Amino acid sequence: MSAYQELHDHFEKIGDLRHVSAIAGWDEAAMMPPGGGEARGRALSTLGVVIHEMVADPKVVAGIETAATEDLDAWQAANVREIRRAVREATAIPADLLRASSLATSRSEQAWRRLRGENNWEAMRPLLEEVVQRQREIGDVLDGATGLGRYGSLLDTFEPGATTAMIDELFGELKSMLPGLVDEVIERQSSEACLPVSGDFSIENQRALGMEVMAAIGFDFDHGRLDVSHHPFCGGVPSDVRITTRYNTDNFIEALMGVIHETGHAMYEQGLPDAWANQPVGEALSAGTHESQSLLMEMQACRTPEFLQFLAPRAQRAFLGQETNDPAWSADNLYRLYTRVRKSFIRVDADEVTYPLHVILRYEIERDLIGGKIEVSHLPDAWNEKMTAYLGLSTAGNFTDGVLQDVHWPAGLFGYFPTYTLGALTAAQLFAAARRDLPELPADISAGRFGSLVEWLRTNVHRKGSLLGFDELLTEATGSTLSAVPYLDHIRARYLG
Amino acid sequence: MSAYQELHDHFEKIGDLRHVSAIAGWDEAAMMPPGGGEARGRALSTLGVVIHEMVADPKVVAGIETAATEDLDAWQAANVREIRRAVREATAIPADLLRASSLATSRSEQAWRRLRGENNWEAMRPLLEEVVQRQREIGDVLDGATGLGRYGSLLDTFEPGATTAMIDELFGELKSMLPGLVDEVIERQSSEACLPVSGDFSIENQRALGMEVMAAIGFDFDHGRLDVSHHPFCGGVPSDVRITTRYNTDNFIEALMGVIHETGHAMYEQGLPDAWANQPVGEALSAGTHESQSLLMEMQACRTPEFLQFLAPRAQRAFLGQETNDPAWSADNLYRLYTRVRKSFIRVDADEVTYPLHVILRYEIERDLIGGKIEVSHLPDAWNEKMTAYLGLSTAGNFTDGVLQDVHWPAGLFGYFPTYTLGALTAAQLFAAARRDLPELPADISAGRFGSLVEWLRTNVHRKGSLLGFDELLTEATGSTLSAVPYLDHIRARYLG
Repeated sequence: MSAYQELHDHFEKIGDLRHVSAIAGWDEAAMMPPGGGEARGRALSTLGVVIHEMVADPKVVAGIETAATEDLDAWQAANVREIRRAVREATAIPADLLRASSLATSRSEQAWRRLRGENNWEAMRPLLEEVVQRQREIGDVLDGATGLGRYGSLLDTFEPGATTAMIDELFGELKSMLPGLVDEVIERQSSEACLPVSGDFSIENQRALGMEVMAAIGFDFDHGRLDVSHHPFCGGVPSDVRITTRYNTDNFIEALMGVIHETGHAMYEQGLPDAWANQPVGEALSAGTHESQSLLMEMQACRTPEFLQFLAPRAQRAFLGQETNDPAWSADNLYRLYTRVRKSFIRVDADEVTYPLHVILRYEIERDLIGGKIEVSHLPDAWNEKMTAYLGLSTAGNFTDGVLQDVHWPAGLFGYFPTYTLGALTAAQLFAAARRDLPELPADISAGRFGSLVEWLRTNVHRKGSLLGFDELLTEATGSTLSAVPYLDHIRARYLG
Repeated sequence: MSAYQELHDHFEKIGDLRHVSAIAGWDEAAMMPPGGGEARGRALSTLGVVIHEMVADPKVVAGIETAATEDLDAWQAANVREIRRAVREATAIPADLLRASSLATSRSEQAWRRLRGENNWEAMRPLLEEVVQRQREIGDVLDGATGLGRYGSLLDTFEPGATTAMIDELFGELKSMLPGLVDEVIERQSSEACLPVSGDFSIENQRALGMEVMAAIGFDFDHGRLDVSHHPFCGGVPSDVRITTRYNTDNFIEALMGVIHETGHAMYEQGLPDAWANQPVGEALSAGTHESQSLLMEMQACRTPEFLQFLAPRAQRAFLGQETNDPAWSADNLYRLYTRVRKSFIRVDADEVTYPLHVILRYEIERDLIGGKIEVSHLPDAWNEKMTAYLGLSTAGNFTDGVLQDVHWPAGLFGYFPTYTLGALTAAQLFAAARRDLPELPADISAGRFGSLVEWLRTNVHRKGSLLGFDELLTEATGSTLSAVPYLDHIRARYLG
């Protein structure tokens, strides 16, 4: 057996174990009764250690070097590259550090669930300090292996190829434009009438409409499910994608847009190359690329007048039992409801215009925090200062809606936040290219025909798995590397056109 | 660290991996969309191999010998005994044989799902021959380690301590009594009026009543769930027990009795000793003991006039929206509906009087098949002959309701069937002892108070885990080893009293 084949078979087993872990993880969020949590946490952590040991197995390290000298096709060579990445990360971090970090984040994340509601920053601070200390140490050992710097190395685990220099440039451009654009859009929208809608927004009705839209987009229910969880997410495995949402019975827009967002993630997973299932090269390319697929569906394709034309009669039937001429339920009014821009405290509730400012704030703070320019004790002030500068909102003394609002830092996820906005920029750039390639796209969307768009995404993104680097993928699909221009053009066209 | 402690820690990890496997297995039956099956099967099989390798690890074999010489308390010593059992089984079976057997059963079980519906014995036969061949080989290598004989060794994996000699004796007694008893009961019941009930047996109504009864019995919903699957079962882990049922909207009795049966299993799991969670000694004692807990709840406690008094007004409210004087809905009539005895083809639908005859038929056939006295090609004739002798029903040419009716043989489960009837005998013996110890039990059950019964079971069975052997456990609880007398007394009292 070739060294490559041995690597392949070994990672096939790792993929199988990750499959089981993904399903048990989904279950934890969507099905598990509260009393099951402690034992589940231990069980998943043990499985994680088994997987980590298999990835860091010294035989794998040796196998990579031999495999790289063998005669490989492009997919196999890319698979070896991805395996090398995974092994480099797994072997760089000493087991003791990994355990200490995992313990610190587990304590901190559990405390956060309680402390956020209590607005209790003082109790959170020491727990977060421990997490940050471990993340700095992990960043340092990864830097030793990658040379990407302490924060850059953490970023690279979520977004291979991304650098702080490139993000600083893209985010700098957004930061110089967005605050002014936000004010302009809010001013413009203040003179537009926007009628509230009412109807029977029962969970069953919302779920039925959500599934109708998922089916129109092309979600394969033979290989996936829709369920409920406290925080919506897309989990499971490509052969069985589990998306979740949460329902608010006062308002159907939130859950529906959430379902469409997660369906965008799910279409990526369901479209990954079958032939490379369970191999690193068969996985989604990066966190930002994943987010681009959800935002392309949610923001680019479905927050459009065309989609609302498709949706309006279906929403009327779902929530009123029949179609109506009520102007509140018209496609135009629903579009206005869907595209309302507001300055608000909470990132996850933010519209697509203000959202990048929430992300830039977090990126700048975490970059400096991991880099050691600021300490955990400075976070509330730094947050308040930037929130005031970017969105004109003060979070002084309001930790719940400020530094405590996201789970990411208590969970030790440093380097993740920027991928949200990289995803938004990528979505805009991909959708602009798809529109150029598919002249019939607006008409298709207004008829609920997503086939041409999905096939374009399958060809240009999904079926490529991790074959190409991000720059190469985006250049092949759109003609250029990532730029903020398509996103800014899109915002101007949609909100100020 | 002592050798015992090392063993303990190693099996703690194995317990964690089995936890994840159990949840993914439950998901496969209760949640997974059909298209997820192939990848899930592979993933669970890989995890199974990882677990098998950890159990059969040469370090464990050496550790057992050292640990056995250390100063251990009774629980620790029993844990080493259980670990030794598990390791003996895992190391006896060569990996190649395990893989070949697993492949054969997987093929055969999948084909069975289709072929049963097609009444297609000829296509099933060669697949089953391969399964039986592998089971005979496994029986032989286990016999080499245990000296219990080929079939006896397979039986011992499900029911430690049980022997064919002991089963032959118990089943012989049943076989000599039951056919006559069945005829007597049917004759007696033929003159009893038994009115059909009708109402709104919607799934929601059935589910709500099922959960009300589960709560009355004491099922802890903080550590478990009720869901739907094609074949009802009790899965998950002690900290998070997952039971399932299936609903027939023409009839509520089937699903409700199924829920009570699985709740009996679940109470055992939820009552296992917390301090030994994840250790072999903390697990349920055997398949037969497990079945005794489900049958004690379903048949002994809840198929009684007392339980029907508790149930009748609740069932009326659940399915009619209010209480009623309709004689069909009276506790007496429901009791008659619940205790109807019929000669029928299908084991899983059989009443408690005919059920052992279904099991004895299977036991006698599989014992002779594994032993080599008969071959797979003889199965339909053997089935027809015994079915005619025990229940007066011919299955000539009717494979669907005969030899193809159960998944056990296609799934390679030889030695499992007798545990159903060992469970029924054990349930009768335990319940008779509980009634002696708890004079207030009938009154409690008619008021829906299960606390005293559950506490009796907790003390005498659940909290003991696998500390004692079966004979010791039953003798401590009831004063004697297993006998068919309490079961036969119970049948005579309930149906001919």
